[in-house]
Amino acid sequence: MHEFSGGVKKPYQNIIEVSASDPHRGGLRPLTFVRQVLAACLYPQLINSDKLPVDVRQRAQRLLGACAGGSVGSYTATAGIAEIVQSVSDFITRRDGGIPSHPENIYISPGSHWNIFTILVNSKSSPRSGVLTPVPGYSNAVMSLTGVGAVNVPYYLDKEQGWELKVEELHRALESAKGNCKPVALYIINPGNPTGQVQSRKSIQEVIRFVSEKRLFLLVDEVYQECVSGEKSDFVSYKKVLFEMGHPYSDTVELASFHSVSNGFFGECGLRGGYVELVNVDPTVMKYIYKLFSKDSCAPVLGQVALDLMTNPPQPEDPSYPLYHLIQKMKATLLCNLKRFMEVLNSLPGFHCPPFEGGTFAFPRLHLPPKAVHKAKEVGMQPDTFYCMRLLEEAGVFTSPGCDFHLKDGSHHIGVCIMISEEVMEELLRRLACFHIQFMKDFS
Amino acid sequence: MHEFSGGVKKPYQNIIEVSASDPHRGGLRPLTFVRQVLAACLYPQLINSDKLPVDVRQRAQRLLGACAGGSVGSYTATAGIAEIVQSVSDFITRRDGGIPSHPENIYISPGSHWNIFTILVNSKSSPRSGVLTPVPGYSNAVMSLTGVGAVNVPYYLDKEQGWELKVEELHRALESAKGNCKPVALYIINPGNPTGQVQSRKSIQEVIRFVSEKRLFLLVDEVYQECVSGEKSDFVSYKKVLFEMGHPYSDTVELASFHSVSNGFFGECGLRGGYVELVNVDPTVMKYIYKLFSKDSCAPVLGQVALDLMTNPPQPEDPSYPLYHLIQKMKATLLCNLKRFMEVLNSLPGFHCPPFEGGTFAFPRLHLPPKAVHKAKEVGMQPDTFYCMRLLEEAGVFTSPGCDFHLKDGSHHIGVCIMISEEVMEELLRRLACFHIQFMKDFS
Repeated sequence: MHEFSGGVKKPYQNIIEVSASDPHRGGLRPLTFVRQVLAACLYPQLINSDKLPVDVRQRAQRLLGACAGGSVGSYTATAGIAEIVQSVSDFITRRDGGIPSHPENIYISPGSHWNIFTILVNSKSSPRSGVLTPVPGYSNAVMSLTGVGAVNVPYYLDKEQGWELKVEELHRALESAKGNCKPVALYIINPGNPTGQVQSRKSIQEVIRFVSEKRLFLLVDEVYQECVSGEKSDFVSYKKVLFEMGHPYSDTVELASFHSVSNGFFGECGLRGGYVELVNVDPTVMKYIYKLFSKDSCAPVLGQVALDLMTNPPQPEDPSYPLYHLIQKMKATLLCNLKRFMEVLNSLPGFHCPPFEGGTFAFPRLHLPPKAVHKAKEVGMQPDTFYCMRLLEEAGVFTSPGCDFHLKDGSHHIGVCIMISEEVMEELLRRLACFHIQFMKDFS
Repeated sequence: MHEFSGGVKKPYQNIIEVSASDPHRGGLRPLTFVRQVLAACLYPQLINSDKLPVDVRQRAQRLLGACAGGSVGSYTATAGIAEIVQSVSDFITRRDGGIPSHPENIYISPGSHWNIFTILVNSKSSPRSGVLTPVPGYSNAVMSLTGVGAVNVPYYLDKEQGWELKVEELHRALESAKGNCKPVALYIINPGNPTGQVQSRKSIQEVIRFVSEKRLFLLVDEVYQECVSGEKSDFVSYKKVLFEMGHPYSDTVELASFHSVSNGFFGECGLRGGYVELVNVDPTVMKYIYKLFSKDSCAPVLGQVALDLMTNPPQPEDPSYPLYHLIQKMKATLLCNLKRFMEVLNSLPGFHCPPFEGGTFAFPRLHLPPKAVHKAKEVGMQPDTFYCMRLLEEAGVFTSPGCDFHLKDGSHHIGVCIMISEEVMEELLRRLACFHIQFMKDFS
């Protein structure tokens, strides 16, 4: 399909798309247990067949029992199916070592959570509301903010120190907003994406003190919580740290934490299932959030079902446990991909791959020769976009240039999803290395 | 489950929920072909089994071939999977007798289409943007409008003439907005919901002339297009009439038409799949719409798959055709339910059920005795809410009061979804009749 373009024969058979975190696109297989339960929910005749494991059939039966009219085709409650919201709540409580999670604070969403910005910013306010967002960061966050009439206030992660979040930088960003907007919230991604940085407990404490002092709402994207690969790093949730810090933080700091079935080892991006847990949120705002979710009817029911399976997985005594446990193999794949990626990239001239602690993205720095930077300017492109375009054209590898993540300090990067199959990773590295060596030669 | 409430034994075993259009909740069964294809897409092992008809397996195979990595768990293009967008486009062209539909003007959405308002209203404009919306109408439309900083400008359908849309009333509404906001769009639901009115070609022509003259964007909710039950009514799409009218209308009037798998005979509300076709929309606005859809990643893939099945159903030569054709039985069920509903309601004192032409809702008028109106005021409720609350409490039938649809003229109504199974309809009518006779006696 991609062999010819404008009549020129390409040296590759297919395009490897690793510009976004989309594991199935990168050759990873879905989890059998998940797909079996979903298929049985859709086509309940499968529940009576002995082709599927008994725990799959029981789970599908139980979940259908929680659907109106016994069908995944019915609308659900605004916040999601009560039984599934309970599974999510129990999962959070277990994850945080017993710190209680209350189902009434959880909303199941269609995965993308940006519309939460709608509630936090008042489009009619003057000065306009502002939200602090990280750089490097994703355009859809910024687009959502500006779409609701708010102002994006960028803060920069520390490139020289593995993209660490520095509280001094948050202070600077807040100060920079003066006269332009009224900052109302801080948006954080931890584990970082595309940066792969994982915040320590100490760093989280500092951020909590900062938002408490500045009275900012804390929005935390924790969708990569299962994907921590650094040897010294552990994922600790903002909620856990908040409660460990005690009064006044634990009962005043307003927090929204997001998670989904799209990211991590599930990789079910297409099902659109996620949740937000809200902590210490003012009852008036909670009412608005209910209304905000109401207007979209409900989250896709099969995304909700997948969320139940993610938060309440098979247990050792269940027949599906051994197969489900292949999720461990995916963790090994991620680690293996990471090791290979760093090995190869760091061996290439001009690439520097910082230590990586979590998430599903690698974000190596690229030192481009002056001739390449010059050529890029000539054709009216950012230098890293120019590199990525050439990589796509000549080697069929589709990556994201650093400038797409709003980096404007003259440094160049490429973003690559590494949660892909080992075979696809090997082919990607082969093509990338070949292309890169030629590229550096051409512009030396 | 609902037998006891506050220790008082209820005379019903379950609650019949007919307050919203949600066919599976009301006992209708999903279409087997649809569910088989969806299950096979999720769990491709089923494609190799001989338990499923060959056309189901072929369709699933073809659709998976259109998904990145062959998985419904991958993200799709912003507007939806290209092959499915093409199916939708072909469906529209066939429906409109050959008037061409262009795939690049179609966006697959998660069913609820209210965020389209975001693009039409500029939250920073002064005076604020206004949108004309029908009464009776749904709260989520109004909530979405006000949520993006726009002003709702109600227009009233003619209660005395089967809820007909009168252009004089549109003029009045537009006039009423003066000094308050700048109307930019007209929102229409045809076939009507909850009113059941179906617009004639002549009525549509009048509306088109009106929006053309007043330079309003036309937003048309056509999700009930398959559900036309009046003997003299036929569904004609706004797009078809627009093109029949020719220049200048056909190349200037900006139109967005919505459809989904939730409504009508599919009843797959939980899958969240719908589409919008945009006609004559300014290229700048088209760019914004692309951005608007981008920020939500993509519509749920299984909702997209269902949309393919709805717009490209089995043909007479396909093995699944006879079973799929039971969709005709659902049309018969709808007609039968309607007939029974009108028969029973019109036989009850105080009820008046106007002739019904389309949609899935019945919206009979309720003439309440003065004592009931008085009692409602005493307990601080709208009279029709009071009636519906009592009906729920005493008979376990959950309906929507007319005032929820913003009727404020002192008339009372109840909204009932009639796209339910015949058994549920009979039980509903039995309970409603019993309750109503007692209610009228109590307040006589």
